[in-house]
Amino acid sequence: MRELRSSSFWRAVLAEFLGSLLYALLGLGASLRWAPGPHGVLGAALAFGLAQATLVQALGHVSGGHLNPAITLAFLMASQLSLPRALGYLVAQLLGALAGAGVLYGVTPAPMRGTLGLSALHPSVGPGQGTVVELLLTAQFILCVFASFDDRHDGRPGSAALPVGFSLALGHLFGIHYTGAGMNPARSFAPAVITRNFTNHWVYWAGPLLGAVLAALLYEFALCPRPRSLAERLAILKGEPPAAEPPPEPPAEPLELKTQGL
Amino acid sequence: MRELRSSSFWRAVLAEFLGSLLYALLGLGASLRWAPGPHGVLGAALAFGLAQATLVQALGHVSGGHLNPAITLAFLMASQLSLPRALGYLVAQLLGALAGAGVLYGVTPAPMRGTLGLSALHPSVGPGQGTVVELLLTAQFILCVFASFDDRHDGRPGSAALPVGFSLALGHLFGIHYTGAGMNPARSFAPAVITRNFTNHWVYWAGPLLGAVLAALLYEFALCPRPRSLAERLAILKGEPPAAEPPPEPPAEPLELKTQGL
Amino acid sequence: MRELRSSSFWRAVLAEFLGSLLYALLGLGASLRWAPGPHGVLGAALAFGLAQATLVQALGHVSGGHLNPAITLAFLMASQLSLPRALGYLVAQLLGALAGAGVLYGVTPAPMRGTLGLSALHPSVGPGQGTVVELLLTAQFILCVFASFDDRHDGRPGSAALPVGFSLALGHLFGIHYTGAGMNPARSFAPAVITRNFTNHWVYWAGPLLGAVLAALLYEFALCPRPRSLAERLAILKGEPPAAEPPPEPPAEPLELKTQGL
Amino acid sequence: MRELRSSSFWRAVLAEFLGSLLYALLGLGASLRWAPGPHGVLGAALAFGLAQATLVQALGHVSGGHLNPAITLAFLMASQLSLPRALGYLVAQLLGALAGAGVLYGVTPAPMRGTLGLSALHPSVGPGQGTVVELLLTAQFILCVFASFDDRHDGRPGSAALPVGFSLALGHLFGIHYTGAGMNPARSFAPAVITRNFTNHWVYWAGPLLGAVLAALLYEFALCPRPRSLAERLAILKGEPPAAEPPPEPPAEPLELKTQGL
Repeated sequence: MRELRSSSFWRAVLAEFLGSLLYALLGLGASLRWAPGPHGVLGAALAFGLAQATLVQALGHVSGGHLNPAITLAFLMASQLSLPRALGYLVAQLLGALAGAGVLYGVTPAPMRGTLGLSALHPSVGPGQGTVVELLLTAQFILCVFASFDDRHDGRPGSAALPVGFSLALGHLFGIHYTGAGMNPARSFAPAVITRNFTNHWVYWAGPLLGAVLAALLYEFALCPRPRSLAERLAILKGEPPAAEPPPEPPAEPLELKTQGL
Repeated sequence: MRELRSSSFWRAVLAEFLGSLLYALLGLGASLRWAPGPHGVLGAALAFGLAQATLVQALGHVSGGHLNPAITLAFLMASQLSLPRALGYLVAQLLGALAGAGVLYGVTPAPMRGTLGLSALHPSVGPGQGTVVELLLTAQFILCVFASFDDRHDGRPGSAALPVGFSLALGHLFGIHYTGAGMNPARSFAPAVITRNFTNHWVYWAGPLLGAVLAALLYEFALCPRPRSLAERLAILKGEPPAAEPPPEPPAEPLELKTQGL
Repeated sequence: MRELRSSSFWRAVLAEFLGSLLYALLGLGASLRWAPGPHGVLGAALAFGLAQATLVQALGHVSGGHLNPAITLAFLMASQLSLPRALGYLVAQLLGALAGAGVLYGVTPAPMRGTLGLSALHPSVGPGQGTVVELLLTAQFILCVFASFDDRHDGRPGSAALPVGFSLALGHLFGIHYTGAGMNPARSFAPAVITRNFTNHWVYWAGPLLGAVLAALLYEFALCPRPRSLAERLAILKGEPPAAEPPPEPPAEPLELKTQGL
Repeated sequence: MRELRSSSFWRAVLAEFLGSLLYALLGLGASLRWAPGPHGVLGAALAFGLAQATLVQALGHVSGGHLNPAITLAFLMASQLSLPRALGYLVAQLLGALAGAGVLYGVTPAPMRGTLGLSALHPSVGPGQGTVVELLLTAQFILCVFASFDDRHDGRPGSAALPVGFSLALGHLFGIHYTGAGMNPARSFAPAVITRNFTNHWVYWAGPLLGAVLAALLYEFALCPRPRSLAERLAILKGEPPAAEPPPEPPAEPLELKTQGL
């Protein structure tokens, strides 16, 4: 619990709250329909993607710019985050997304509010299919996030923000038709609370979280394995500082001296 | 006032003038409607965003590529700009945007001029709501600008131009529906002057400038605090060179010698 | 065959399989039509391009992120890949794309499946014209890939992922009208197998593979020639380790000693 | 004329030829209309922009990736290119663009050829207005190119390819409505030759070339002045190697010795 006393922890939690607020506000808001006509898939996909890109750029050095319980779970699985920090991020993400959806409700004229960007399955897509879609879309996104933040291959420089954002936009270009493209349980949670509509809501938790677990296992144990002992992984999980090397044993007293002392 | 005598000051002011001219010309021009049909939100959003990206790339190393009184105010608040330079930038931005809107008026056939990209509230959006929207859109943009130009975290390289431009495009994808997406008082000022239409014009100053203040305070004092004394901040504000270290005291004459000299 | 025993080989093959699965799934899926009206060329082009960008970012450090037999052939021609690895990649790409198209078939409601993104010539475009189009589109793409992964000019840093992805998107913006824009035999193979429609299918192998050969020859021998002996090229092709310098001859025994020993 | 004997010169000329061929082919081709309905400004603007980005990425380290007489003239004005090289580039650009438009003519079904992407003024835009538009669009583009290739400010890393391409796309988002957005005399020349339509063709040379001169003067002499003597500039223009430092004078013989020798 030492982590809770560090200012960097609270700055990161603040960043996750603010980032999730802006992500939900901007993404959901750009998905609303102000005029009849075909739905603007491209604009909505770019809005979510550019929101993630902007906020990774703005907040990535403070908290990592997760804004998404699926990313937080993936980093937790891969021993890159402690459990206390993951819990702090989760609470901040859910409250932030709720606040963002609430602000959106407040600034939007009633006729345009619609369902406030609620994640919903296409009528012909079943919840099983929807879960698979959310799982796969989130898995490609998490793989891209992992590689973009992996400090082991610095041979390929370049900002993480745009590739991560475009990977999210890609998921929306595909997924908006099938499931509305959640890819982020906090983003799906907020409009469900405000519109009190939890139909198939579990899909938007199960799909992304399973996708995160799958991507984390694939990346960390198959594609780019990182040798770490179970003890190390547990210590990281608890937020313990890296176990200090056992202090070097005092040099054994030279045998001659002892015999000398006899 | 020593800054006014440096050539780098005047080159920066020239860059802000030229940049604001091109930003207003290209952004406002790409928002005009040449044919009936639904408004091209995506094209207009990308035009403003790519204009900011291009001009940050082209002029960022000369003036920072602000082109926007809100960015200038934010850097002033965060003690990264002197007051004389901020005032010079502001004048250059307003005159540049006016010149850009004037050129646009000249090259555009009369039937297509419309309101020349005037920032206007959606009929169902009140000025209070509009101010909140402008505030939030500008705040996310300024956070992205601050992080992109922050030389403290060089671990995340990559050009500032594209992330900053895409953050502005994001704001437009959301905001064009609500307020026309000003996000830049100079950009909103120019068509208001030319069309002599100042309805709700204060929204496009209050929103972005409050958003800039909020983002600067958040970034500089909460998210990424920079330890600086008030005296340092005042010196930067006045454009004074960093207070030189007090000159090292001359080494105290060795006491023996003095007593010797007696 | 030593390469087949290294874990890096199998991790790369896994990456090619997973990447090709996701590329086919996301690209083909975003090309389906969920509503009547004009075909969304821009959205489909961006989906293929962002899929390539995302997967190069995610998997580029594992396998190079080819996902495409044409890229693999080009690197083979340019002596940057061994023949066993190229064959492993090819099998992984074909199986991965098939798996991706199969998943797409499973998650998509029957009325929206259409031809599952099958590559098809425009009725007025003949197979010869189509082959030329595929050849040229793939050649520009391969040139961009080669330059992005060329470690000889590190003066131009920047991530490979986005330029490579945007080059693919560019090919689609042009080619969707002519040939459906294959640019990748594995991507074209998968829906042909599932829909059992091989009309003009050879165009989608001949065009991209000829384009890859042309681009590899141009880049490696004309634009940026790399001095390599035929023996070196053959050794790379076979996956042999770089021929060790011939061991320095043991210093000739001094003649005097020998005569001394007689 | 020594430059004409270097292989790097001919590789650069080949790169300009190939690049201009692909630029004209892909940009003009993506501007054709395959279906009735509103013109796809966004798709055409992105195609030209991504073509420039791809080709700067692919060929920038060979020739600079100009593909455009206006860029070549600007670098010539700024003493960054010799006159022989500029002339070689110009010929390669014109022949390359012609070849690209010719290939486009060959692969496109007759009903879709239209005017093959011919640059044409909007009926309400006069040639003077058109020239001003082309001048301004090209000037912003050249400023972005200059800054992206300026090796003096390496503090702002990042690939040149995407910012340069997006700056070109920006010019098209604005200019397609006014002038069809030439921004490149070679690109405008090729369809004019093939369709034998030179109406207002001078606009597409005068505007971009004047814009290039203006941007080069602004960047090189006002915004980022580079101290160079006229002699140095003339030597670069002629392609002469940098004038060697005058050889250090032999150290004056010590006076004592001389007097000693008397």
